[in-house]
Amino acid sequence: MRALTLPELRFEDRPDPVPGEGQLLVRVHAAGLNRADLVQRAGKYPAPPGWPADVPGLEYAGEVEAVGPRVTYFAPGERVMGLVGGGAMSELLVIDQTEALAIPEGMAYTDAAAIPEAFFTAWDAMVRQGRAAVSDRVLFHAVGSGVGTAAVQLARVLDLTIIGTSRTPDKLERCRELGMSHGVLTTDDDWPTQVGAPVNVIIDTLGAGVLDANLNLLARHGRLVILGLLTGRIAEHFDMGLMLRNRLGIIGTAMRSRPLTERALLVARFTEEILPHFERGLLRPVVDRVLPMADAARAYDVLASNTTFGKVVLAMDEQG
Amino acid sequence: MRALTLPELRFEDRPDPVPGEGQLLVRVHAAGLNRADLVQRAGKYPAPPGWPADVPGLEYAGEVEAVGPRVTYFAPGERVMGLVGGGAMSELLVIDQTEALAIPEGMAYTDAAAIPEAFFTAWDAMVRQGRAAVSDRVLFHAVGSGVGTAAVQLARVLDLTIIGTSRTPDKLERCRELGMSHGVLTTDDDWPTQVGAPVNVIIDTLGAGVLDANLNLLARHGRLVILGLLTGRIAEHFDMGLMLRNRLGIIGTAMRSRPLTERALLVARFTEEILPHFERGLLRPVVDRVLPMADAARAYDVLASNTTFGKVVLAMDEQG
Repeated sequence: MRALTLPELRFEDRPDPVPGEGQLLVRVHAAGLNRADLVQRAGKYPAPPGWPADVPGLEYAGEVEAVGPRVTYFAPGERVMGLVGGGAMSELLVIDQTEALAIPEGMAYTDAAAIPEAFFTAWDAMVRQGRAAVSDRVLFHAVGSGVGTAAVQLARVLDLTIIGTSRTPDKLERCRELGMSHGVLTTDDDWPTQVGAPVNVIIDTLGAGVLDANLNLLARHGRLVILGLLTGRIAEHFDMGLMLRNRLGIIGTAMRSRPLTERALLVARFTEEILPHFERGLLRPVVDRVLPMADAARAYDVLASNTTFGKVVLAMDEQG
Repeated sequence: MRALTLPELRFEDRPDPVPGEGQLLVRVHAAGLNRADLVQRAGKYPAPPGWPADVPGLEYAGEVEAVGPRVTYFAPGERVMGLVGGGAMSELLVIDQTEALAIPEGMAYTDAAAIPEAFFTAWDAMVRQGRAAVSDRVLFHAVGSGVGTAAVQLARVLDLTIIGTSRTPDKLERCRELGMSHGVLTTDDDWPTQVGAPVNVIIDTLGAGVLDANLNLLARHGRLVILGLLTGRIAEHFDMGLMLRNRLGIIGTAMRSRPLTERALLVARFTEEILPHFERGLLRPVVDRVLPMADAARAYDVLASNTTFGKVVLAMDEQG
């Protein structure tokens, strides 16, 4: 099989993987691109043990080509999507059967590949890590991203009020069309004031640069869930008194490093609680553009430019 | 009735409180002294709304003297103890029936008054906020305190491994006698190394001065529960990258500011899960000394001296 390799992102030949007990062999038709892929290419986010170290790609959509012994969840020919710790940008992929989700009927592979990372991350961050409950106010930083546009739609399904931030007015406008309650431009100095009333949950991809503002925006018992650190890693003013006074929580989270058992549990819950909403058309992946996998380097540049709205997806072939 | 008043801690006459619907009138025999009382006396920790602003005391043990309408939990003559938002250092106290706990059979009021704050706080911090599970490693800072000595005993009951820190070798030795697995002197520069393997939960009363060390001591998915900030409130080096990489959580918590419904729930669970262990003798309050309530000012000085092991308790009268 062919696989894209780091750091050049050129196709190389690799041996076909063989599915073991409980595993699926998946022919990949599309792979979503993530900011974590950019960081990995820069040498700063190595793949966790057990995943290909030099083949990027954290989510895939494809067709089951073969199955190993004791597989009961899926059969050859079925269409699946899911998260992996690495290696999605290849023609063939071996995954555990408990990690795959069925692609909703009629959905293109290039749309399906835009679901796992964005919707899993948004749902897990808001509901499971952040414990957002009905009518909670949720602040979502950099809301024009894949995970942000997923969060805006999930908020509608889960009956949350979502306030998004961006540096681009156009992204806020498009998120409003997706159902966002209220948008705030972080280029305005008084953006924290514009957020309005205190929020119960903040989903943050910005990090150190907004920590102080975030903690001050949280309501009593509020939770700050950290997904990324785009503005910096080390905060030089962390008011621990606020944590005590308002009984706040800060939670660092990442999908990629989770063990298989935890990912499988997440897949089972997501399949039950969230996946049906795609079939009913209440949720849909937001795809900025689809590029051929052979043009991966260009796709990386596009994502790095911060001009995309929603996901960038790589298509393996004409079936994409 | 007489009540101690802030900041002088002298008895003053106050009108007798009257129990309303669902409330108990309690004749206080003893009140535990807490570090929060010291902070309140210094003008930095005002009582939450609904509690006496100028009468200190966050926990009491006494006898039900009268009950308001619709009281079913306790009857006059029964012995009760519990947490309050303020006002425990007075002869009479009105509390909601759902907030009181029955004093274990045969236990002196001056021992009972040492239970609520220490054991509620330690239990809530370790199990409910920190989600410590069987065989987890728990690091407890300033373990010679009332809450620390409670935590050491609770760890035995809950099958947790507890590692305590102190600046005083003698306090560590006495905690070992209570069942502590391992003690570390924070006066040693290499104390973090002495903690050994990573810990799952840290209960911290020290704050900014040890934040960096704490985060580096946490295992994957570890939780730092903040109860106090004795070494400072503002941390100038908060490595948010560690939070993400190891999926850490930081939780700020405080008992006093919780609403009645939450305190009542805590009392119900504590009554079911923890209180029986006092009756079986597996848990016992550690009382450093008992002083007359009229000597409250001296008791405050004793607690501030950091030389106590376990609780300082104030006794109202000869019945204490």
